[in-house]
Amino acid sequence: MSINKTNLYFDATASHPIPSDIWQTYCANLQKYYANPAAVYESGILAQKLITESLRDIASTFNVAPGQLLITSGATESINTVFYNFAKRRRKQQDILLIAQGEHAATVAAAKRLADDLQLELIYVPLTSSYLLDTDCLENLLQQYGERILALSNVSLSNETGTINDLMLISRLLKKYAPKALWHVDNVQGWGKIAWDFVQTAVDYVSMGGHKIGAPKGCGLMYIKEPKYFKPFIVGGGQQNNMRSGTENPPLVRAMADAALKNGNISRLNAKREYIQKLRDLLLQNISTLSYSIQGAAALRQYPGIVAISFPNIRGEVLLHSLEREGISVSTASSCHNLAAGKVAAQKAACFTEAVAQGHLRITINEEHQVDDILILAKAINKCVSFLAEINRK
Amino acid sequence: MSINKTNLYFDATASHPIPSDIWQTYCANLQKYYANPAAVYESGILAQKLITESLRDIASTFNVAPGQLLITSGATESINTVFYNFAKRRRKQQDILLIAQGEHAATVAAAKRLADDLQLELIYVPLTSSYLLDTDCLENLLQQYGERILALSNVSLSNETGTINDLMLISRLLKKYAPKALWHVDNVQGWGKIAWDFVQTAVDYVSMGGHKIGAPKGCGLMYIKEPKYFKPFIVGGGQQNNMRSGTENPPLVRAMADAALKNGNISRLNAKREYIQKLRDLLLQNISTLSYSIQGAAALRQYPGIVAISFPNIRGEVLLHSLEREGISVSTASSCHNLAAGKVAAQKAACFTEAVAQGHLRITINEEHQVDDILILAKAINKCVSFLAEINRK
Repeated sequence: MSINKTNLYFDATASHPIPSDIWQTYCANLQKYYANPAAVYESGILAQKLITESLRDIASTFNVAPGQLLITSGATESINTVFYNFAKRRRKQQDILLIAQGEHAATVAAAKRLADDLQLELIYVPLTSSYLLDTDCLENLLQQYGERILALSNVSLSNETGTINDLMLISRLLKKYAPKALWHVDNVQGWGKIAWDFVQTAVDYVSMGGHKIGAPKGCGLMYIKEPKYFKPFIVGGGQQNNMRSGTENPPLVRAMADAALKNGNISRLNAKREYIQKLRDLLLQNISTLSYSIQGAAALRQYPGIVAISFPNIRGEVLLHSLEREGISVSTASSCHNLAAGKVAAQKAACFTEAVAQGHLRITINEEHQVDDILILAKAINKCVSFLAEINRK
Repeated sequence: MSINKTNLYFDATASHPIPSDIWQTYCANLQKYYANPAAVYESGILAQKLITESLRDIASTFNVAPGQLLITSGATESINTVFYNFAKRRRKQQDILLIAQGEHAATVAAAKRLADDLQLELIYVPLTSSYLLDTDCLENLLQQYGERILALSNVSLSNETGTINDLMLISRLLKKYAPKALWHVDNVQGWGKIAWDFVQTAVDYVSMGGHKIGAPKGCGLMYIKEPKYFKPFIVGGGQQNNMRSGTENPPLVRAMADAALKNGNISRLNAKREYIQKLRDLLLQNISTLSYSIQGAAALRQYPGIVAISFPNIRGEVLLHSLEREGISVSTASSCHNLAAGKVAAQKAACFTEAVAQGHLRITINEEHQVDDILILAKAINKCVSFLAEINRK
């Protein structure tokens, strides 16, 4: 096996390639800023300064204070840290934990552990048939349990279907029925795709991961509404205002800031989305002779860059490997689900038939893609699907 | 401020510069292996293969099974994970936690949290005047408390003084008096400096950090004697056999393996130590007209590459900044202690006078240093110490 240089990669949802300018700066910084940023000599101080400036840059893209941001080793650590804080901030009467159906395995695992440890009841908020958090169901649950609810956790944007939850509405419901409940939004896929104002929604914790927007792997981010109540999940030398210990990583934090400025910058998101919408439309036009179904929501609540598509009687994994032979990488579901117990979390949650769930292909279109890439993809899909359908008919 | 290119860096204990061959491979791999190693297409499978091979390489340098190694985000996470496992593996009668005096802030903080959470008594095992764990005291404690002891945690090699604990003796004492107690060795500074056989000592957990031996920051390592009893500290997508969730980082794991093969290889440690011993001797010869004291142990139990030295009536920090003006970076204590509460943990623990503790300079000599570097360092120390002593006399 060798890496095919003509490979077309449509799986940035799983991991985003590092843009060459970010890569170059990161590699140069690895040599320049090797000192421990806790050191008191010049190179240590410069390394610390690089972190401070990078955090300021990231904070500026979210309109929050740098002190409300925490660097972690990745989104999974961020999510674990959130649930650790749920435990530490629990009030006596709170014995219910809400998470949406179809959440990422990190949220499910952290929620289950928390529920076990604190003897909480874990309730899954259903999704609609459009894979969106069912806000009617949520309202009922909030009305019913109110003060008993410790926390709610849900994604901003589904990694499996690209559907976008109505965070403003969820926020209003929480404020109305369960104002003391804590709220975590898993923004791992939302970062760099949709703009939403943390402060306006009054979310308590937001989790993000650097490698989903083009930073090298190994860095994650958390937004924390009220740092004064924050409890460190990883303790030690007291780095990051004692909120997350461990030697800080100046080159990597800078790379995450560069990725935030490049791919996460709110002011550029609309133009990016329009461009990607055109590529999505082009793809669907060019496979329009095939019979397929798209899993997702209506335009406003659907991010165009994630195309969850299935073809009748063709298993997603078979099609994936057919496309691979054409030099094209796509995914069947979220990568993590290849490892974790479940298959396609959001789909199962929304109770689609197993036949459709098995056929679900996830194609990620991002800003780096060109019209030609999409035409090659469409051609390959036409070829592979026709071939597999032909086999089925025999 | 700018980074001085003629800077001589004597603080690899705080963070080791990345050797250029490791850096080159890492940077190339960042572009080549960007796929998520959980993905089922070719580039994902190749990324997973890179991790498997890297782990096998690291395991070979320790003579352990790859399945006994866990990749973390750094030594601090490793240490937090160990203490989480202490909690999960606690037996009913166990209500005492032992840690050595002078441990790294990560161990102290994790131990304090565990003691608070489980209502354990935390007992600090004293150090001798040579900064070694006092094995007579340990024997007394083990005899006295035996089965009541949940765990012991101590360093293999002190980051502050370079002293090397007698792990074989500690192992025998534990087996004799408290066979059910768990044992963690913080090998962050021992890795790449001293050879010891994890399996022979029957240690339960060993913690290490990649950037201390020349890997980029952001990776750590754990050795786990019995993975079947291991409980994940960070849960989620089930990566690393469900022992540590979070997207794996193929280029960084490869870099840690390269650093392990280069700097951590047991077969090379003796030659390295001899070379560094010569440089240490050279340094001390060339400052022999000054009056100074060395904190540490006798040759066998002292790693030559960490020189903890003090000069009468000269504060370490003042001398550090004088040396910096000569283009030389050294440390006063461990970098983490600049942040954490304590000053110089091992020194305070060994009850040295405050005057000496304040004057403690930590000079790290590593394999990359040349005779000329040491001569420049000695010259600068002579100049700065004489100058500061002159001021004191006025």
